Amino acid sequence: MQFTSGKHVDDGVLEREFTLGEIPGILWTPTSASAPAPLILCGHPGGVHKMYPRLAGRARHYAAEYGFAAATIELPGSGDRPRSGAAEQARADLRRALTAGEPLDEIVDRLVLPLVEKAAPEWQATLDTLLSLPEIGGPVGYEGGVIAIGIRLAVLEPRIAAALLFAGSFVPATSLEEARQISIPLQVLLQWDDEGNDRQRALDLFDAFGSAQKTLHANLGGHTGVPSYEIDAGARFFARHLR
Amino acid sequence: MQFTSGKHVDDGVLEREFTLGEIPGILWTPTSASAPAPLILCGHPGGVHKMYPRLAGRARHYAAEYGFAAATIELPGSGDRPRSGAAEQARADLRRALTAGEPLDEIVDRLVLPLVEKAAPEWQATLDTLLSLPEIGGPVGYEGGVIAIGIRLAVLEPRIAAALLFAGSFVPATSLEEARQISIPLQVLLQWDDEGNDRQRALDLFDAFGSAQKTLHANLGGHTGVPSYEIDAGARFFARHLR
Repeated sequence: MQFTSGKHVDDGVLEREFTLGEIPGILWTPTSASAPAPLILCGHPGGVHKMYPRLAGRARHYAAEYGFAAATIELPGSGDRPRSGAAEQARADLRRALTAGEPLDEIVDRLVLPLVEKAAPEWQATLDTLLSLPEIGGPVGYEGGVIAIGIRLAVLEPRIAAALLFAGSFVPATSLEEARQISIPLQVLLQWDDEGNDRQRALDLFDAFGSAQKTLHANLGGHTGVPSYEIDAGARFFARHLR
Repeated sequence: MQFTSGKHVDDGVLEREFTLGEIPGILWTPTSASAPAPLILCGHPGGVHKMYPRLAGRARHYAAEYGFAAATIELPGSGDRPRSGAAEQARADLRRALTAGEPLDEIVDRLVLPLVEKAAPEWQATLDTLLSLPEIGGPVGYEGGVIAIGIRLAVLEPRIAAALLFAGSFVPATSLEEARQISIPLQVLLQWDDEGNDRQRALDLFDAFGSAQKTLHANLGGHTGVPSYEIDAGARFFARHLR
């Protein structure tokens, strides 16, 4: 892990860009912590630079208000990372099928499953490295979309103690099966009028999660309209499970 | 309004029983407040004594942690108040129809609509009186079931600035229509596996609310299994809208 830049962005928050092999990422840490901090892994749909305002808004709140560390990495095939021809093809096919109102399941499988296969081990390697830093101690939470990646990590990675997932309907059938195996506490965000997601499929996914403790927060509005108060609601969910 | 008893129940919370005419109630106030406190009206399905642990748990948290006053009154026909023959008949009919799997709509109308007609003005009279106390200043929030009463008050009573409603499926069609007229911010609690409520009807009701700002909190578990952290989530909802 190489830190490539560092700046104090907020009262008591240090933001550092890093690379882990070929993977770029950002780490936010509270500078005032007296003990190693719990860690939130901040997932996103790809494109760290494009997603930066939203990611940084959440991460800085976690660090400044709750003393959590937070980190994100670029997804395979997104941002400045090498494109995958197959993924680009699947993405184009998905756009066309959405416009034409054609079935999506096969295309979603082609787009999402290879991404999960690549991204989940990268998150795990990132976790290994971050937990070796003296200022980070765990426990660990995961948040964000692509939801199939969150599902895989919640099932696969015993160091993740709680997950905040952004509901989507582009969920492969195998991910839905994995969802039934999840046992950690979940909080799920659903945008009630999400243009790109089918509400009933998102509710069915919430129903499928195997966790004994799961909460759905559904808010009025479209895909990018998550109310700002959900940042703190997420932080409080993590505070209940990562302390 | 007559105060009939008073005790300090918690650090900085005064709990007083009162009667307003024939209506018994309980008022919780923060004793350390330096200014008149916002007020939460705590609705319930009837039977203040039976509901006391849940009501007091919420009200004391509001008063002790957020400096809100909170009050509840007995519903018409419940607790020690005179029974209504028609309501008792409707209640018996509802039980029989539920067991037999018969249609409920007509019975729900007979049970709930007269209750709304009686209870809403009683809440408004209580509000008049409570707001005349020097230690209470508004703004005002309403929380709880019977949800049809909450809907009526949210539409009818301009002093109510925000409402936290407990979703149910025993909602008369006229209440569903009223729900579309609500414009104040809403937070709605839904128990995902509620034995007595139909999940899809509860989701349809959430969809119907006219408010531009509405959030659904759905939690795993049965009717009485609302997680304790929803008390604070409710308090924070009110804190956003009553300050």
